[in-house]
Amino acid sequence: MEPLAVAGIRLGSAGAGIKYPDRRDLVVIEAAAGTRAAATFTRNAFCAAPVTVARAHLAAASPRYLLVNTGNANAGTGQQGLADAEASCRALAEQTGCRPAEVLPFSTGVIGEPLPLARLVAGLPAALATLRPEGWRDAAQGIMTTDTRPKWATRRAALGGREVTVTGIAKGAGMIRPDMATLLAFIATDAAVDGALLRRVLIAAVADSFNAITVDGDTSTNDACVLLATGQAGVAVPGAGAGHQQFTAMIREVCIELAQAIIRDGEGATKFITVAVEGGRDTAECRQVAYTIAHSPLIKTAFFASDPNWGRILAAVGRAGLADLRLERVAIHLDEVCIVRGGGRDPAYTEQRGQQVMRRPEIAIRVELGRGGAAARIWTTDLSFDYVRINAEYRT
Amino acid sequence: MEPLAVAGIRLGSAGAGIKYPDRRDLVVIEAAAGTRAAATFTRNAFCAAPVTVARAHLAAASPRYLLVNTGNANAGTGQQGLADAEASCRALAEQTGCRPAEVLPFSTGVIGEPLPLARLVAGLPAALATLRPEGWRDAAQGIMTTDTRPKWATRRAALGGREVTVTGIAKGAGMIRPDMATLLAFIATDAAVDGALLRRVLIAAVADSFNAITVDGDTSTNDACVLLATGQAGVAVPGAGAGHQQFTAMIREVCIELAQAIIRDGEGATKFITVAVEGGRDTAECRQVAYTIAHSPLIKTAFFASDPNWGRILAAVGRAGLADLRLERVAIHLDEVCIVRGGGRDPAYTEQRGQQVMRRPEIAIRVELGRGGAAARIWTTDLSFDYVRINAEYRT
Repeated sequence: MEPLAVAGIRLGSAGAGIKYPDRRDLVVIEAAAGTRAAATFTRNAFCAAPVTVARAHLAAASPRYLLVNTGNANAGTGQQGLADAEASCRALAEQTGCRPAEVLPFSTGVIGEPLPLARLVAGLPAALATLRPEGWRDAAQGIMTTDTRPKWATRRAALGGREVTVTGIAKGAGMIRPDMATLLAFIATDAAVDGALLRRVLIAAVADSFNAITVDGDTSTNDACVLLATGQAGVAVPGAGAGHQQFTAMIREVCIELAQAIIRDGEGATKFITVAVEGGRDTAECRQVAYTIAHSPLIKTAFFASDPNWGRILAAVGRAGLADLRLERVAIHLDEVCIVRGGGRDPAYTEQRGQQVMRRPEIAIRVELGRGGAAARIWTTDLSFDYVRINAEYRT
Repeated sequence: MEPLAVAGIRLGSAGAGIKYPDRRDLVVIEAAAGTRAAATFTRNAFCAAPVTVARAHLAAASPRYLLVNTGNANAGTGQQGLADAEASCRALAEQTGCRPAEVLPFSTGVIGEPLPLARLVAGLPAALATLRPEGWRDAAQGIMTTDTRPKWATRRAALGGREVTVTGIAKGAGMIRPDMATLLAFIATDAAVDGALLRRVLIAAVADSFNAITVDGDTSTNDACVLLATGQAGVAVPGAGAGHQQFTAMIREVCIELAQAIIRDGEGATKFITVAVEGGRDTAECRQVAYTIAHSPLIKTAFFASDPNWGRILAAVGRAGLADLRLERVAIHLDEVCIVRGGGRDPAYTEQRGQQVMRRPEIAIRVELGRGGAAARIWTTDLSFDYVRINAEYRT
């Protein structure tokens, strides 16, 4: 389904030659006056210059423009990087008549090289000239670096008697150029949402989507996710009740669809793996077990090989660091097949049944811890020859 | 240097056909009466049956025999696995005239398949018939599963006017058969060492050696390290002073040499990488940063490609979870080359200098955190095509 336009949002893009010639590498997203925004950023202590600047600008003003470049992450660039990010915002502000603090900058690409500011600024008029409400698809293409396909998600539903639209785009953790896992996601709605509520909705949606995926555990320096609410649909999202639930669900669905698209396009991925951990004492320990499984190179290579090597999953659960874990209460399923029960291989399990499941392109591991009522679910990829090839290729 | 015999220790081995015919897969290590023993075991909550049994036997008696089989880990095998491990100890006890609790069992190999007890027991007479003080090399060969070479380390020095020997063997985390990372190490000395002291010396040595290596972070269900002290050199190790220091250093050196040999033989390893983290507030946070680097698939693939992709190292330090990390105080070196200083690329750094270092087969990453006086050092491998191949090959 093509991305639906969101009233109050226009998108433009251009090729500014930031790293390569003839490549769309500059995207401008314009939000109508009165738009509210919420954002989440990387928790990497070494965040990139644009992340620092975007955080500061967001605290000072409501954004009118998101300015995104690919080809250069402007990370590990020190004071010069901060100055460059600020300068890019000033340049866009001058050309559009807004204040610099009303521009949020985002960069993705190689770490540690100076941002080619002059080329970026020179590309702005062309990007602004293409601003249009239908620009979502081109923008999705424009923020790609090494993704193999553009990613968007879109929903439209009646809310409070009006039609409300949510559309988002994202670029992925496909580090085909061996620099970093940069996740960028931009989502907009034409519903009117109070700033505090918008932030709450975004944080909840991100927790279940972008913060529930991993390719290799390498948190990027540039991750950012922005949610814009233009209010132009003429309907306000209430703080509670059915309308609130419905809106929250739309945002959540769009975020999950984008997050899953990132995993499906993960570097070298041949399998889409859901890791669900249930019966934990709290969500934190369920996530701990899920990530231990999702980051295990042994499990990831076994999935690549379609090898039902359940001992590796058992061993990962065992080393996840849970105190007082009772082995005899743990059960592990691959899709519908129980592989481990009571601390050992399920009596009904056969290698053939395990093999059957492992050949599927989408597989769910379900771990029952048997010690509480909490659960968590994340998505990940396998570890293939292509992962190594992609990330071992030199940066030229 | 060939492994030196240790007075009071005899080693024998045999091919029992546990998994393959015509392969030495059964090792017996005999310790003279009066030998003291200390051991450390896996912290994986799902420890294998022999680990449970060895722990219990060690608490009940001083071991006279270590019984090691390869080809089957006796892990994830439930009550039957425990019974089989006990039965193997009983069989050896009957044939040697010791008590079952004086036998410690160790297994390594495939998880989740029943131990072929009958074949193991049938192989015992042949293993016992070959017991000799010079059996170290054969034993090192006999405990290999997918290691490409046997591993031993040996030291001899004067201590308290007598000659004291320390010899150890180990098998590695080379999971060339895609089952598990099983580390087994058996070290013996002819010095006389009090039980509590022996344990203290072992734990300290293991912390700096076997607990400071990682190939892929997948802690095995069967890891075990045993230190035997026969006392037959006629010299007692004091609890403090120069003789104590000297003995401690010998044990530590043997453990480090074995641990490094495991990393050098790590699956698919093409590089030997030292990760040293200095200037931390405590050892724990230094280890946290070191392991975040050592487990990063992006860093490991960059090493495989000899790519000085310093942004990946910077990003790993940043995501290691240290509170209040001051980016501008962090410095990162590759061997003698400073790559990062003050939060960005070192002004004197050139890609060419980085490349020169990265082409070396042994490389040290040194991270200076600039926030305290603590340090930690670990060793690891790169992530190569062969790692994926080895671990994706089906278990047949």
